[in-house]
Amino acid sequence: MWTTDLTLDTVVRLLSENEASARQTLSMVPSETSMSGLAKLPMLLDPYHRYFFNEDDDPDRWHFRGAQRLRDLEMELTVPLLRELGRASYASVRPLSGLNGMTLVLAALGGDPGSTVVTIAPELGGHYATPKVAGRLGLRVEYLRGPDPHTLDLAHAAELLARTRPSLVYVDQSHCLFPVDVKALVDTVRAASPGTLVHVDASHWLGLVLGGAFPNPLDQGADSWGGSTHKTFPGPQKAVVLTRDPAVEQLIRDTQDFLISNHHFAATIGLGIALLEFRDFGPDYTRAVLEHTRRFGRLLTERGLTLAAADRGHSAGHQLWLDTEADGIPAKTAAARLSAASLKVNFMSGLPGFTGQGVRIGLNEATYEGLSGDDIDELADVFVAAVRDTEPPALLAERTAALRRRTPYGARATEGSPLLAAALELCEGALRRTGTAAERILTEAAR
Amino acid sequence: MWTTDLTLDTVVRLLSENEASARQTLSMVPSETSMSGLAKLPMLLDPYHRYFFNEDDDPDRWHFRGAQRLRDLEMELTVPLLRELGRASYASVRPLSGLNGMTLVLAALGGDPGSTVVTIAPELGGHYATPKVAGRLGLRVEYLRGPDPHTLDLAHAAELLARTRPSLVYVDQSHCLFPVDVKALVDTVRAASPGTLVHVDASHWLGLVLGGAFPNPLDQGADSWGGSTHKTFPGPQKAVVLTRDPAVEQLIRDTQDFLISNHHFAATIGLGIALLEFRDFGPDYTRAVLEHTRRFGRLLTERGLTLAAADRGHSAGHQLWLDTEADGIPAKTAAARLSAASLKVNFMSGLPGFTGQGVRIGLNEATYEGLSGDDIDELADVFVAAVRDTEPPALLAERTAALRRRTPYGARATEGSPLLAAALELCEGALRRTGTAAERILTEAAR
Repeated sequence: MWTTDLTLDTVVRLLSENEASARQTLSMVPSETSMSGLAKLPMLLDPYHRYFFNEDDDPDRWHFRGAQRLRDLEMELTVPLLRELGRASYASVRPLSGLNGMTLVLAALGGDPGSTVVTIAPELGGHYATPKVAGRLGLRVEYLRGPDPHTLDLAHAAELLARTRPSLVYVDQSHCLFPVDVKALVDTVRAASPGTLVHVDASHWLGLVLGGAFPNPLDQGADSWGGSTHKTFPGPQKAVVLTRDPAVEQLIRDTQDFLISNHHFAATIGLGIALLEFRDFGPDYTRAVLEHTRRFGRLLTERGLTLAAADRGHSAGHQLWLDTEADGIPAKTAAARLSAASLKVNFMSGLPGFTGQGVRIGLNEATYEGLSGDDIDELADVFVAAVRDTEPPALLAERTAALRRRTPYGARATEGSPLLAAALELCEGALRRTGTAAERILTEAAR
Repeated sequence: MWTTDLTLDTVVRLLSENEASARQTLSMVPSETSMSGLAKLPMLLDPYHRYFFNEDDDPDRWHFRGAQRLRDLEMELTVPLLRELGRASYASVRPLSGLNGMTLVLAALGGDPGSTVVTIAPELGGHYATPKVAGRLGLRVEYLRGPDPHTLDLAHAAELLARTRPSLVYVDQSHCLFPVDVKALVDTVRAASPGTLVHVDASHWLGLVLGGAFPNPLDQGADSWGGSTHKTFPGPQKAVVLTRDPAVEQLIRDTQDFLISNHHFAATIGLGIALLEFRDFGPDYTRAVLEHTRRFGRLLTERGLTLAAADRGHSAGHQLWLDTEADGIPAKTAAARLSAASLKVNFMSGLPGFTGQGVRIGLNEATYEGLSGDDIDELADVFVAAVRDTEPPALLAERTAALRRRTPYGARATEGSPLLAAALELCEGALRRTGTAAERILTEAAR
């Protein structure tokens, strides 16, 4: 019927080659980020295989006991750090991804079928999936709109809210250069439709908020906020929902009880480790992301590329949008040239204000990977030379690789570190539990 | 507001202690399993951070390029192996968990809001979440019922199907000793309601089907099947959906496009590695699971414990249900005593046919961990002594630990193995990218 020719040794070789390549490559995809190796360690270990439900450590409720010894790593590490950095009294760590979290929030707070949910219009950067997920849950969708791709029309919002009385305003900027003014929006909601909840899906900005570079949506009056934990926050592929409102908390709990069973306990511990590290370096890192993004936008502009929102400083966050087609270079060509220079970027249709395809980049991972100061200028030189195809890709790739020899944010693990040694011993223990005939053959071949 | 006192070194110590403990513990929770260390390796590496969408390797559709070099590990390893072992022409690897997969299938195949979905009644072991997920999607739910907790009433099914003309029959046995006769059910569906699709959520039996110990639902006439990949299949925390029907494939594709964006690419590669190893040992392993389960049921019965379905050989699969309360021992007490003997089991209300709480166990992980032959007798002796509290827990825990010194299914990694060496080098590369002030302090303290 179908099968594979790949063998275990080929798979490990491909993974190994990819690691070598990744270490010489810079990802500028704004929705991705690398993260601490230690924070990934739990996924190699026993908690990866276990369910965890007994948050309160009730002796009569250890229906699944495999997580019992590590209960504190979720309830005394991950959850309290989310509360602390997210300025919330309740944190759900159960969603498995951004869309899983969106589905949870829309199912929990969107009201009965037939209710209306208001979200950000696609032409203002609203997420492509929100109207479809809401629609599949039986919710009617109305859009917040604006006079330009970066501004909400609050008068229109007030009229819409008063007319439709939605259950929920779901703020879902995905293609986003400037964050919605949550305070102004909440004030508008409270005045026009007092029963409406406001949730801010800050997936793209989660790290920027947790690090303090962006205002916290709860401080701005939102009822809840959250998002995926692997964009500007250097964490695992999961999502979180945070609130201070016990009624919202209860709705989230009641819904996640049937929408999410296995919540990926090891990744949840990994999130705690990532938060513990981030508490130290997050404020510096997130300030640097904003600074590098603005600087990079200015440098690209000075070098003649066309960027969106030039009149507004290009970006308040980590994203920049390039209109290379205005410069005579198809976006997909620009992306392919950048890739040959070991710079990975998004290209896509549908960026707000664009008629053709655009290139969407972020400075988050470059910053996490340790670039700063003059590195940003060098990165701009490589970037522009690649887009314009003015230097051989191999030379540009070498310059990118040189930029990757920086130290990632917070990285301090050195030879002889007891932490590294302990972690490696754990890896070896896990990896010994491996193998098949292919491994047996390899082992015998090595004798 | 809230914070944590835990430090990185404490976290690693807790993880390390848990590994040591897990290596002396036997999990008999039927919905969990350990797996190959090598299959978890990708989650420590760069693919953990990347999105992957471009299945067809279309040069114009590398909107996210981070997965480009490893595209084949999904499309030429994981997917073909699923097609081969799952006897399907299409395999979706996008769901993140069993419930995420269930949500996908109900959203894709359940029809428009107001449609009816037929599923297994809770008193026959239907999954607790199915009616709630279906209800939140606007679907009406009707139940297949039976004369006893292990048998479908096909005459009732025919009447129900003809009367309600459901869009979908979703077979979701979760507490299950005997699989539904899918062929008989499909024949009933085709006769009574020809337009109705049949999906078999075989989460608990996925490994048993892929290994050939249980019949393949597609061979029995189902339109699609799938489930979570971490119960009887020793794989990652994900789920899959398989079909031979292009129309069903299209519905799944159209729906997953908006329900799942980040599909956990590294875990998907891990699934491929697990399948590659399983292709070798799966048939032996799954036959052994069935044999060990029946044998363990007989041994417990001989030693005086009360099990469900004694008249039918206790189980056709990997689960056994103990009615310790009939033996005068509350289920939670039995579970706590077993835990003290390093045997982890489920206890719960709602097992079909039970009035109180029951103990639910599985022989899947014990079998994967290498137990066989007389080990099963020794395990039964330890188990019964623990439940009855007739020997000191510490001595029983020592006997459990001795049972854990078997070689796991398929495990062949040895000192000097080039595969292990290559994998460890990758781990070290990942772990070096770690750390914070805590790590710096540790490192300095070690000098």
